[in-house]
Amino acid sequence: PRNLSQFMGSRSISVEALKPSDTFPRRHNSATPEEQSKMAEFVGYNSLDSLIDATVPKSIRLGKMALPIFDEGLTEAQMIAHMQDLASKNKIFKSYIGMGYYNTFVPSVILRNIMENPGWYTQYTPYQAEVAQGRLESLLNFQTMITDLTGLPMSNASLLDEGTAAAEAMAMCNNIQKGKKKTFVIASNCHPQTIDICQTRADGFDIKVVVSDLKDIDYKSGDVCGVLVQYPGTEGEILDYGEFVKNAHANGVKVVMASDLLALTMLKPPGELGADIAIGSAQRFGVPMGYGGPHAAFLATSQEYKRMMPGRIIGVTIDSSGKPALRVAMQTREQHIRRDKATSNICTAQALLANMAATYAIYHGPEGLKTIGQRVHGLAGTLAAGLKKLGTVEVQGLPFFDTVKVKCGDAKAIADVAYKNEINLRIVDKNTITVSFDETTTLEEVDKLFEVFACGKPVTFTAASVAPEVENVIPSGLVRGSPYLTHPIFNSYHTEHELLRYLHRLQSKDLSLCHSMIPLGSCTMKLNATTEMMPVTWPAFANLHPFAPIEQASGYQEMFKNLGEMLCTITGFDSFSLQPNAGAAGEYAGLMVIRAYHMSRGDHHRNVCIIPVSAHGTNPATAAMCGMKIVALGTDSKGNINVEQLRKAAEANKENLAAFMVTYPSTHGVYEEGIDEICKIIHDNGGQVYMDGANMNAQVGLTSPGFIGADVCHLNLHKTFCIPHGGGGPGMGPIGVKKHLAPFLPSHPVVPTGGIPAPDESQPLGSISAAPWGSALILPISYAYIAMMGSKGLTEASKVAILKANYMAKRLEKHYPVLFRGVNGTVAHEFIIDLRGFKNTAGIEPEDVAKRLMDYGFHGPTMSWPVPGTLMIEPTESESKAELDRYCDALISIREEIALIENGKADVHNNVLKGAPHPPSLLMADVWTKPYSREYAAYPAPWLKTAKFWPTTGRVDNVYGDRNLVCTLLPVSQMAEEAAEATA
Amino acid sequence: PRNLSQFMGSRSISVEALKPSDTFPRRHNSATPEEQSKMAEFVGYNSLDSLIDATVPKSIRLGKMALPIFDEGLTEAQMIAHMQDLASKNKIFKSYIGMGYYNTFVPSVILRNIMENPGWYTQYTPYQAEVAQGRLESLLNFQTMITDLTGLPMSNASLLDEGTAAAEAMAMCNNIQKGKKKTFVIASNCHPQTIDICQTRADGFDIKVVVSDLKDIDYKSGDVCGVLVQYPGTEGEILDYGEFVKNAHANGVKVVMASDLLALTMLKPPGELGADIAIGSAQRFGVPMGYGGPHAAFLATSQEYKRMMPGRIIGVTIDSSGKPALRVAMQTREQHIRRDKATSNICTAQALLANMAATYAIYHGPEGLKTIGQRVHGLAGTLAAGLKKLGTVEVQGLPFFDTVKVKCGDAKAIADVAYKNEINLRIVDKNTITVSFDETTTLEEVDKLFEVFACGKPVTFTAASVAPEVENVIPSGLVRGSPYLTHPIFNSYHTEHELLRYLHRLQSKDLSLCHSMIPLGSCTMKLNATTEMMPVTWPAFANLHPFAPIEQASGYQEMFKNLGEMLCTITGFDSFSLQPNAGAAGEYAGLMVIRAYHMSRGDHHRNVCIIPVSAHGTNPATAAMCGMKIVALGTDSKGNINVEQLRKAAEANKENLAAFMVTYPSTHGVYEEGIDEICKIIHDNGGQVYMDGANMNAQVGLTSPGFIGADVCHLNLHKTFCIPHGGGGPGMGPIGVKKHLAPFLPSHPVVPTGGIPAPDESQPLGSISAAPWGSALILPISYAYIAMMGSKGLTEASKVAILKANYMAKRLEKHYPVLFRGVNGTVAHEFIIDLRGFKNTAGIEPEDVAKRLMDYGFHGPTMSWPVPGTLMIEPTESESKAELDRYCDALISIREEIALIENGKADVHNNVLKGAPHPPSLLMADVWTKPYSREYAAYPAPWLKTAKFWPTTGRVDNVYGDRNLVCTLLPVSQMAEEAAEATA
Ligand SMILES: Cc1ncc(COP(=O)(O)O)c(C=O)c1O
Ligand SMILES: Cc1ncc(COP(=O)(O)O)c(C=O)c1O
Ligand SMILES: O=C([O-])O
Repeated sequence: PRNLSQFMGSRSISVEALKPSDTFPRRHNSATPEEQSKMAEFVGYNSLDSLIDATVPKSIRLGKMALPIFDEGLTEAQMIAHMQDLASKNKIFKSYIGMGYYNTFVPSVILRNIMENPGWYTQYTPYQAEVAQGRLESLLNFQTMITDLTGLPMSNASLLDEGTAAAEAMAMCNNIQKGKKKTFVIASNCHPQTIDICQTRADGFDIKVVVSDLKDIDYKSGDVCGVLVQYPGTEGEILDYGEFVKNAHANGVKVVMASDLLALTMLKPPGELGADIAIGSAQRFGVPMGYGGPHAAFLATSQEYKRMMPGRIIGVTIDSSGKPALRVAMQTREQHIRRDKATSNICTAQALLANMAATYAIYHGPEGLKTIGQRVHGLAGTLAAGLKKLGTVEVQGLPFFDTVKVKCGDAKAIADVAYKNEINLRIVDKNTITVSFDETTTLEEVDKLFEVFACGKPVTFTAASVAPEVENVIPSGLVRGSPYLTHPIFNSYHTEHELLRYLHRLQSKDLSLCHSMIPLGSCTMKLNATTEMMPVTWPAFANLHPFAPIEQASGYQEMFKNLGEMLCTITGFDSFSLQPNAGAAGEYAGLMVIRAYHMSRGDHHRNVCIIPVSAHGTNPATAAMCGMKIVALGTDSKGNINVEQLRKAAEANKENLAAFMVTYPSTHGVYEEGIDEICKIIHDNGGQVYMDGANMNAQVGLTSPGFIGADVCHLNLHKTFCIPHGGGGPGMGPIGVKKHLAPFLPSHPVVPTGGIPAPDESQPLGSISAAPWGSALILPISYAYIAMMGSKGLTEASKVAILKANYMAKRLEKHYPVLFRGVNGTVAHEFIIDLRGFKNTAGIEPEDVAKRLMDYGFHGPTMSWPVPGTLMIEPTESESKAELDRYCDALISIREEIALIENGKADVHNNVLKGAPHPPSLLMADVWTKPYSREYAAYPAPWLKTAKFWPTTGRVDNVYGDRNLVCTLLPVSQMAEEAAEATA
Repeated sequence: PRNLSQFMGSRSISVEALKPSDTFPRRHNSATPEEQSKMAEFVGYNSLDSLIDATVPKSIRLGKMALPIFDEGLTEAQMIAHMQDLASKNKIFKSYIGMGYYNTFVPSVILRNIMENPGWYTQYTPYQAEVAQGRLESLLNFQTMITDLTGLPMSNASLLDEGTAAAEAMAMCNNIQKGKKKTFVIASNCHPQTIDICQTRADGFDIKVVVSDLKDIDYKSGDVCGVLVQYPGTEGEILDYGEFVKNAHANGVKVVMASDLLALTMLKPPGELGADIAIGSAQRFGVPMGYGGPHAAFLATSQEYKRMMPGRIIGVTIDSSGKPALRVAMQTREQHIRRDKATSNICTAQALLANMAATYAIYHGPEGLKTIGQRVHGLAGTLAAGLKKLGTVEVQGLPFFDTVKVKCGDAKAIADVAYKNEINLRIVDKNTITVSFDETTTLEEVDKLFEVFACGKPVTFTAASVAPEVENVIPSGLVRGSPYLTHPIFNSYHTEHELLRYLHRLQSKDLSLCHSMIPLGSCTMKLNATTEMMPVTWPAFANLHPFAPIEQASGYQEMFKNLGEMLCTITGFDSFSLQPNAGAAGEYAGLMVIRAYHMSRGDHHRNVCIIPVSAHGTNPATAAMCGMKIVALGTDSKGNINVEQLRKAAEANKENLAAFMVTYPSTHGVYEEGIDEICKIIHDNGGQVYMDGANMNAQVGLTSPGFIGADVCHLNLHKTFCIPHGGGGPGMGPIGVKKHLAPFLPSHPVVPTGGIPAPDESQPLGSISAAPWGSALILPISYAYIAMMGSKGLTEASKVAILKANYMAKRLEKHYPVLFRGVNGTVAHEFIIDLRGFKNTAGIEPEDVAKRLMDYGFHGPTMSWPVPGTLMIEPTESESKAELDRYCDALISIREEIALIENGKADVHNNVLKGAPHPPSLLMADVWTKPYSREYAAYPAPWLKTAKFWPTTGRVDNVYGDRNLVCTLLPVSQMAEEAAEATA
């Protein structure tokens, strides 16, 4: 053989070049070194690093961050392999645990076309209605489903989980009674986690919770604002609450019923029983258990209480052509408006899961759902009948829907046999077991249960042989007579093709990250990479019950531990709780931790919370929910906290200071220089610093909340850490704390938990979510992001995010004033452009610019927050320079359109901005009465010619909708009427 | 406890009601019993069954079909569980086998957004260009990638696999030389399967194949039309073919080079070496091995041979506004036009996989691809260097790219050690092993290989320690100097967001089954259910090398066996071959089986094939490829075969009759009554009956090819059996045969195979696909379909498909003549409407109707085939009555639009049909010069107001494009120019 080196093409090879090539950071961070230099130079710096040095205050600048694991970053293939390894450590036993979590078949068509589809999961909350009619319709379907099944006329578009929904209902009762009755009664037949969450939440509201056996409930005190009962009860029993409700009402007590949607296909609904509020979870409607979440909870009530209802509500209105259109209704109820007057802080909810549940109902239809309900009920009846035949245990006699309660000699012994058969039962107490069935249960599985309960005795029958003797046992007075889901949407899409097309029709109306950048300030709409998303729908993560024995979830537990440790490194904290299901829930958990800490030191009086006026609405709303007195703090003309003013406030409240809430970098998009001093002032005055982590995307690897001096911080994993927004949720809001706060982190009444890493001692504050680790199923997303980026990739992400904001600010500053800047004239990872001047010069408001952006194929930035009359732009590291340039081009072009108005060349009332957005129906109408041209309206930029996303409706009329509130699907007849009127 | 029966709501429960509820047939077959009755009545029958009885001739009507397994049908969840069980039986060893199949990382963003996305996989072949600009662009990207990498200016849009691509090139060489030189030389350094396929194929073309060591090749005979060499060779060597090509050309011999795309990122391309044709596989560009396929093969050549090029070619042209637009070019080359003059029968190809490969190249870009190539090359070099250090084996000295050839004492002993380490090597002979690397190989894996080859000797170094000494060993004369993939499309989408958006932009231009029904006669565009699709992308199916030891593929083998048996039941045959990769490949395999059968009986002279003129173009093309003489048979005025004429033809050719090819029901959409007699006539005259199974959707469960009397039949699994069309492939065309033909079913040179179930003896005809079981990866789709439907569901599908065709025919017959019908006036599963009259009355042609349908949101039916001037409509069982009604409404409305022309109320040349389709750019132009209104053009039906799919281009100009042939991406400058010209 010839010598290899004789070939001239030879070139030696470095080991570096032989490392795996499917690296991730370059796919996530969109900026080649050349682009980085180019942009940095454009901004006036000779390198990215010098820009960063000028932007992030030296005093808080970290040295190099080093992750405890995955510091180098895994490749995409390595990540998948690692997740497969974790998945293999989760053991999926058959679960009969129930307690609000049930196996369900996620219809494959829904799995693939919603849950695994970036066209559904990357969207933002549908505040920009004209480019969100698809998911608005889907959420309206959800609301209609809830109102139909509960028999109550108004529903919101989801809450975080059943437990917090109960707590929200408690707050509503308190509210309805104007805060004058301070006792809330909870029947002991509610799920333990529901009770625990309400107890935690009651604390802040200064409500007294009384947990009582149903038969012992009394309202004599006259102080009871409301009562919560469960239907069916946590141990399965179905009770007729008719008389109970009458009695409560007679005593001036509002009734909340926690109920099960599948049961309601067969049972008289809460509304017909007289309940004031119904809450529950839509999980078993085709949303995997996911070891606890995410799932959509619901809350329904009567129109009377609509203004007190927490959460987003979708409503019907009309658009600029008078055609029916949808949008988020009654936004004045939401925390971002009500702030410390709010009684709920909910912001991010569970839109994606609500959409899945609604679609599940659409696919099955009312008949299909009832069939499933009857089948589950029939199987439960079969178990009960068989167990009676068997005689080894005693079946409880109350009527049930899906859960059979069994009395036995030794519950643990039976559960152990079950365990050996890879079956999880619920042990209620040492002589009681419950068995909850669901749509996945089979006759063969019932046979297996007979074996388990036989305790060795031979079983001489099968479920199939017993079944014909079984009878449906819903008490006649509770059999549902009323129809539900009668709207055509629930009766048309029962084949896969029909459903597929309906879903794609909806999807086609929604602008998502699949189309273009969505630079919403404070929302960090970055890439949700596919590799991060893939494990979420693997059965080994999706099909675990949150209360399954912990050793069955070793894969999850290992991930929690790793994630907790990595988050500690990233934030500079000592321990994390993964329980909060959104940023607002994290705020709540964090402030409650602070509260518990003060209490533990005997500082019961510490209840003042200082909050800058620039804070997000959730901050004051949360503080109010924790029973704190809010001291508002103004900002100076540069948008910064006035340190001297803060010092004064802190000192003035020295005795009672509980906390200070601060967002960093500030909600104005600036790294305030004095932040470390600010923290010191608070500490010096006995307070704790709560940092709102919404802007973590500007901190990771450069500084950290812990390093800056914060005591606790939440992370919106759905912002900085890549969980997609899902069109308004899911999210995750874990909180990190310094060592002294770690003992107080939330635990759980069913599966005890606490800080990760675990602190030495623990005095948990209670539970704040229904599941021990919140929405565990979506944690792989953030976990994979961190692991694939490694320290270097993460740090680069922060730098590039800052670079991009500065690049855009620079490109735009000649056209729009940039409102706030740091000491060196740079901005953080986001910035505000000021549109207030145009109100006078051209009659133009931020909304007009946002709507006109739709014509350019873009979603508007954050509107009029934190400063009214402005737009806040956050590009993120994942957007390419080309995309930023297109967005800038659009804004600059719009500025020129405004100039035409200013110059009198365009009409103040009838111009291309006021007319925006322009849907095709308008643009192709035979009659065109606008003073500007169709083409100019439709194709204002060259890139639109090759592909354009079309808004599907003209500008929605918010006022009309709120005046004529309709929050369920219009009956078809009415739709036709409205359409006819509109076109008449 | 109270007695359960005291509750009045009780109702007893049947065992039936307790069976799993996630049944599949009702999701696939769209017709409730009420709808069935309603439609049957509308057609004039009192039940579905009476309609079927009147439609399917009694003489061929089967009793009940009973599948050997899954007869009752699995539920969706049971199916997934079964597939998981099969998956667990496949063992994924690390493959270094090479031979044209390599591990590859499918980028997750491509996996999810193309391969797992019905918006990409449910589309039809892009013949209706105006609603297919997305995948047309993607296929143009593929062609550009192939031309750039091979250095040859023209590429087609994919072929079935590398082996058949070589065979196609062989036919081209023969063709180029006008059939005058009948020898084709194949160098022995080609893959064995490539050689075998060419040998098989040569038979029919009467070409003599000479396999020769490169150094022994001589052209002295003067009879050599072409020569095929491989670059790099199958055992890895890189040779400089420069002189070789010159010599061949000097001898009037055309040179075909089989080459590897990844190697071509570093090696001088075939075009620069002077090759006339380059072929190969694009598999390793991000398409999983899938135990053999599907993958896209390519064929590139010079413009000179464009008319002889097989397969579809995408080209640039202009639309009705003069703007650049894409469409399938030069269709006159295709088999459906050339028929028995064709030298290739290819029809369905590998569009989806070509799109994946092109997108992989886009995502990596030229630099990224080169980096991957260099890395693979470097790892191979590291192995070679380490093995030399080790000294236990001898490394072959020729330069290599990714494959190291090793001489050793006992190849099997080493392979056994490897096997124990879950590693598959290629054993070339008892002293030779090759090791092929790919992008998934890591340094650690090279270390493991050192251990394997060390034969127990301690290894004192690591790959990382050896690497720095390794040199790149491409011979200098073969180092690639020329640039490639310089077009912006290959240089812009390297981050996930950019790629995601590019893919969604393309997707948004394409009409697919996600939008509306695509009732293409003869194509059976039915539901491709998600549950069927899911296993396709599971690693345990996706990542298996087709030549892996068979015991590692037990899951696959079990599925093949089950599938073969079920297909035998369905078709009435005795054995199946799963090798053919499309319908046309099945036809070829089937006729070759017939040929082999006659040969085996000494009937070498039997070479006459009778084919009705109504046959699909692939039929005569295939017969020609098998060296048969075609006798064409006319149909009578009712569209049927004239039995007497057939008898005459058969008797006249009695001595030489080889076969009769027939489609059943006929391509005219009719169950011919005499089919059993026809089969008998053929048999009586010594011929065999080949049935084209394209219309199996009208047979399953009602009759069968075997029962009717056919001897062999192919099944287009991508029609009746739910493999999605993928925008022009993949497909599968397994063939079933009667017992006497089973011994001749194809085998494979690397992994012997044959009929399933296996016949007693076997004399295989050779191989007809590169992989033993063809595109094994997509077989789970058909398998799941059959298993979930069960006999009852399948039979109902056929009935409902027939019902729906009759329903539509009935609704349309008052508006359009329905061309052919059976004896009782019914049609089969499809029907033809006659538009020929409108040519005279209104100047309207089928194309005008098809294009106008786009404005209604629909894809046109099959146009002008099998009868010019008509449309053939096949609704399938999966379309709802509502969807059929919408389609009928559209056609009826278009009929009214035609009437306006007939009445003189619309202009003959300038009307809404001639102007169709109407893209938004036209509809919103400031200037509107059409004599009809914009709204009428855009919204001709009420359902379009809520959601409309927009064609993105005006009608494409086919003639312009073929006159100005451009089959690669236009340089941007030229695009700008053309656009400028167009708008000038
Ligand atoms: C600054 C800030 N804090 C808190 C939140 C609330 O987070 P979540 O929506 O996850 O509840 C947001 C949400 O946008 C925010 O921007
Ligand atoms: C009747 C008929 N035969 C054969 C074929 C060829 O099948 P394939 O495209 O799978 O090669 C077709 C394809 O449309 C067909 O309709
Ligand atoms: O809804 C907000 O993200 O503020």
